[in-house]
Amino acid sequence: MKQNEKIKIGIIGYGNLGRGAELAVQNNLDMELVGIFTRRDPATIKTATHHVKVYPYHDIESFKGKIDVMVLCGGSASDLPKMSPEVVEHFPIVDSYDNHAKIPEHYERVNEAALKGGNTAIISTGWDPGLFSLNRLLGEIVIPKGGTHTFWGEGLSQGHSEAVRRIKGVKHAVQYTVPIESVLADARRGKGENLSAAERHKRVCYVVADEKEHKRIEKEIKTMPDYFAPYDTTVHFIDEATFFNEHQKMKHGGFVIRSGKTSPNHQQTVEFSLTLESNPEFTASVLVAYARAAHRLQKKGEIGAKTPFDVPFALMTNKTTAQLMKELL
Amino acid sequence: MKQNEKIKIGIIGYGNLGRGAELAVQNNLDMELVGIFTRRDPATIKTATHHVKVYPYHDIESFKGKIDVMVLCGGSASDLPKMSPEVVEHFPIVDSYDNHAKIPEHYERVNEAALKGGNTAIISTGWDPGLFSLNRLLGEIVIPKGGTHTFWGEGLSQGHSEAVRRIKGVKHAVQYTVPIESVLADARRGKGENLSAAERHKRVCYVVADEKEHKRIEKEIKTMPDYFAPYDTTVHFIDEATFFNEHQKMKHGGFVIRSGKTSPNHQQTVEFSLTLESNPEFTASVLVAYARAAHRLQKKGEIGAKTPFDVPFALMTNKTTAQLMKELL
Ligand SMILES: NC(=O)c1ccc[n+]([C@@H]2O[C@H](COP(=O)([O-])OP(=O)(O)OC[C@H]3O[C@@H](n4cnc5c(N)ncnc54)[C@H](OP(=O)(O)O)[C@@H]3O)[C@@H](O)[C@H]2O)c1
Ligand SMILES: NC(=O)c1ccc[n+]([C@@H]2O[C@H](COP(=O)([O-])OP(=O)(O)OC[C@H]3O[C@@H](n4cnc5c(N)ncnc54)[C@H](OP(=O)(O)O)[C@@H]3O)[C@@H](O)[C@H]2O)c1
Repeated sequence: MKQNEKIKIGIIGYGNLGRGAELAVQNNLDMELVGIFTRRDPATIKTATHHVKVYPYHDIESFKGKIDVMVLCGGSASDLPKMSPEVVEHFPIVDSYDNHAKIPEHYERVNEAALKGGNTAIISTGWDPGLFSLNRLLGEIVIPKGGTHTFWGEGLSQGHSEAVRRIKGVKHAVQYTVPIESVLADARRGKGENLSAAERHKRVCYVVADEKEHKRIEKEIKTMPDYFAPYDTTVHFIDEATFFNEHQKMKHGGFVIRSGKTSPNHQQTVEFSLTLESNPEFTASVLVAYARAAHRLQKKGEIGAKTPFDVPFALMTNKTTAQLMKELL
Repeated sequence: MKQNEKIKIGIIGYGNLGRGAELAVQNNLDMELVGIFTRRDPATIKTATHHVKVYPYHDIESFKGKIDVMVLCGGSASDLPKMSPEVVEHFPIVDSYDNHAKIPEHYERVNEAALKGGNTAIISTGWDPGLFSLNRLLGEIVIPKGGTHTFWGEGLSQGHSEAVRRIKGVKHAVQYTVPIESVLADARRGKGENLSAAERHKRVCYVVADEKEHKRIEKEIKTMPDYFAPYDTTVHFIDEATFFNEHQKMKHGGFVIRSGKTSPNHQQTVEFSLTLESNPEFTASVLVAYARAAHRLQKKGEIGAKTPFDVPFALMTNKTTAQLMKELL
């Protein structure tokens, strides 16, 4: 360990990502979890590890000096736009803000508050945005003449699962987004850059419902505008036991493929992929690694908002330069 | 473009990598190639683009102020240990030093000379070391409890091809190193971390020779100690035309797979892979991207030796922060 003292982490928001962050801190021996902060009544929160303390969100300021980095685990839609600027006035933060179109706005707001508070913020970490963004950029850098292809899945889509669950007669349902193999293969040969999401992914639903409703439900799913109609959609009806045995994991993942030519005869392909059995645990693990970097940047006085593009990997590891060169280079 | 002025590049050493670097500079519109430096007689060098100037290596000092970064394309075995420290006293440099065991020594020598000359050096860029190293590190960072698996190939091995060519009666030969599919599949499920290189790769040779020699040659290959005996080796005899049509590309690539658990039930897998039709062109393309970073670090006064672990991707791209956030995050 570079430091003798552990990095003191606070987690804000205890949903899927918050629970993942709690586990991730345990997997990083140079860190300790000081507490979890929630907007709900702390007494109602049951943490995974029972010794962990839960505090009300509005008390965060009293932890100044006791927490090195706050890991923000609120939702991107309505929590983070407010929370990230609010918290960074008092602590270094990392977040996983994933509303791609609004990232520039979010960055500006967080940057302003971070500079005001004299703190470091690393925004939009996780896997997409996050590791996938890094690979989209790396692909362009090392193969300047080529195309970039992002595929999501095979993975559980919350939004699409909910859309199916809203259909009358559906008892339980999950929806997986699955990249189409032949299109993946084309991407690896530098073809198909301009295909739409619907041309690159298919949708597979697993539904629990009474048998006499199957036909109607399948039709309602397949014709649902935007969500399913433009896609190659398959609906499997399964029994409740199978649903609870096989479809409880929040699995996800995907591919970032860059393919192009360095000279007329030489096709070069770079591919990055993730196969995740738990999307929130993995995302949180990435957040927590960026928390280590945020702590280091803060100590170097590099305040303000950053993105994963600005953070060298050396700042995210607990290994020394000598170890990195010997073991990994 | 961030800068109005182009980044002025010099290439030192005109072998495979040097030729690749010449092409790579053309693929990066914010760069210009000032010249190629060789230890051979410049008059004997035929460059790919005829307007490019070739100068003697011993003249580099007269280019001070005219070149921003020197891209070192000498061999790792005997050129770079001497050249990298020599050149960095006068210019920022990047190299692709790939003798893994001796990287720490190389780093020390280059760092000392870089500090003396007041210049930035980024060593051991390329793909392995380089992008593969980055992914070995990233894997550990985001999945602290797991195993890392590096596979090389399918790719042409110079050393093994030469070993085959030295056998009596062999007219032409190439050898490809190929990862074993079932072992790759295991790695993706977190299994097989302690397997040897021979257990993870097979060797495939294409040989041109008189038919009556085939049996003996095949036996000599398959029993060659270290090179082939420990491996699953296949020998294909082909005719000369096929050899020249199908086996001239210096293709290479491989996989870095990290798989582990974030909690007892959740396996998480990160995979990075390369499929390269020209190993030296791709390697050079990476070197040239790091040259952009070296130039920026130099301007910021960050002198001394660095490795890819120390370089944020934002320094390697020509895009602005605003573009990166809008287009790629
Ligand atoms: N960048 C990436 O790769 C990536 C990947 C996955 C997700 N994400 C982002 O992460 C965000 C959070 O995802 P999530 O799955 O953690 O969302 P979630 O489970 O809905 O949690 C969001 C917040 O909801 C609050 N909450 C209120 N009532 C709750 C209840 N009964 N149970 C659980 N939480 C409750 C929690 O805050 P309080 O404790 O304060 O109530 C929690 O922090 C998403 O919005 C997404 O933008 C990013
Ligand atoms: N990190 C990575 O991923 C990676 C990948 C691939 C390669 N590499 C490294 O790159 C190094 C260079 O590879 P390379 O394939 O470019 O080696 P190469 O073709 O053998 O060239 C090495 C040097 O040999 C000299 N040379 C002498 N006579 C030559 C001739 N007739 N033709 C061509 N060159 C001649 C050249 O310097 P002069 O012009 O001064 O004579 C040239 O710079 C390798 O040693 C390896 O360590 C790294």
